[in-house]
Amino acid sequence: MVVKSELKLIKSLQQKKCRNEHGLFVVEGKKTIEEVLKSDMQLYKLFAVDFDDFNTEGVEVNRISNKELSQISSLKNPNGYLGVFYIPKQEQKVLSDWILVLDGVQDPGNLGTIIRLCDWFGVVDIVCSPQTVDCYNPKVLQATMGSITRVHMRYTELKAFLSSSELPIYGAFMDGVSVNDLKLPEKGILIMGNEGKGISDSVAQLCTDKLAIPQFGGITTESLNVASATAILLHEIRK
Amino acid sequence: MVVKSELKLIKSLQQKKCRNEHGLFVVEGKKTIEEVLKSDMQLYKLFAVDFDDFNTEGVEVNRISNKELSQISSLKNPNGYLGVFYIPKQEQKVLSDWILVLDGVQDPGNLGTIIRLCDWFGVVDIVCSPQTVDCYNPKVLQATMGSITRVHMRYTELKAFLSSSELPIYGAFMDGVSVNDLKLPEKGILIMGNEGKGISDSVAQLCTDKLAIPQFGGITTESLNVASATAILLHEIRK
Repeated sequence: MVVKSELKLIKSLQQKKCRNEHGLFVVEGKKTIEEVLKSDMQLYKLFAVDFDDFNTEGVEVNRISNKELSQISSLKNPNGYLGVFYIPKQEQKVLSDWILVLDGVQDPGNLGTIIRLCDWFGVVDIVCSPQTVDCYNPKVLQATMGSITRVHMRYTELKAFLSSSELPIYGAFMDGVSVNDLKLPEKGILIMGNEGKGISDSVAQLCTDKLAIPQFGGITTESLNVASATAILLHEIRK
Repeated sequence: MVVKSELKLIKSLQQKKCRNEHGLFVVEGKKTIEEVLKSDMQLYKLFAVDFDDFNTEGVEVNRISNKELSQISSLKNPNGYLGVFYIPKQEQKVLSDWILVLDGVQDPGNLGTIIRLCDWFGVVDIVCSPQTVDCYNPKVLQATMGSITRVHMRYTELKAFLSSSELPIYGAFMDGVSVNDLKLPEKGILIMGNEGKGISDSVAQLCTDKLAIPQFGGITTESLNVASATAILLHEIRK
């Protein structure tokens, strides 16, 4: 049995405000929890309905009933495992290598996919505008598949961040120069914009280059999904 | 008011079995319906709660109440517009150019994103194994954003289809040759596999080449999402 106040606390972590207030976030799913346990992230508490084959690296697991779990889970069909972890402190070191900057990405599935892409392409630093969806949102975490443990997330005002950097700044635009015609440097900043509105004007002004992914044949579809576009541009960057 | 039997019919179209039985599928969302109306697809019936600014190309719209719409919509928050269209007949012509083959893609969001990518990259023909998620599934349609009207979908046994083609067959594998090291031809078949299991053994045997997207740095994450991988490979094909 889990005490009522604890259930209430965990349930409240579905909201960004409460996550920030308590400095905690929730991970669901056995495999992802096992991955987070192996990382540098600090555990607050672990719950499971049944934990015979749960590889918990020696930490204590609290038994929870299916009924209790369904009260606090963000999933329609909770899968028996829930971990609460401390939100890591944002690192403030100067960033080099390639950095991905997100200017207002709103869809949790897109952010989750983008984090997973950064993990694949070894782009460790992701800098998000305050308007970008919170990376500890349960739907983002579901889409990252544990990759969240291998990237550094930073939420900050982009204008100040970009102005302070000496790296070349590439923004993804519909009307940019084809990525096929450019030679990309070894280090830089890549900015991806909001799903509907793209990169905001004030951020666009700070871009040193405008990139585009060429469409084939006539113009038919409006735009590429931001996660698909990020996949292609990170692949080009790392080639 | 919409008659009860009609509401029942439309609701049943959320299931693949009923879609195939009636040869009908449902599109929700004003913008997507407007796009489908402009295409070659044949309308069965159109419903709207309020249609003052609904661009229906002159076809009749049936008024529906919010309550009726919520009974038949597949959306948590129905948005006021619902169209029922006839499922187009599968074309049986011989395919050339690049063809995308999907071997058991299961996630509706992934299939929707892949259809949108094919539209962007001008890959018109998508051939799916019978185990691939149905492209008229409401969640697929939501993710395609109207691109479904500009591609040809075919569901068929892949072994027979691939055996009858004379095009080179490229399969996406974790242990394939880096796509950066290959020169791809002007025409061919690209096969993407299931999210968890990849390309099935019997289909893998028919591949003439195995492709892979190189990971950067050490191996950390398990795999790229199938839609992200498709984005990168279609981009390479069309370069």
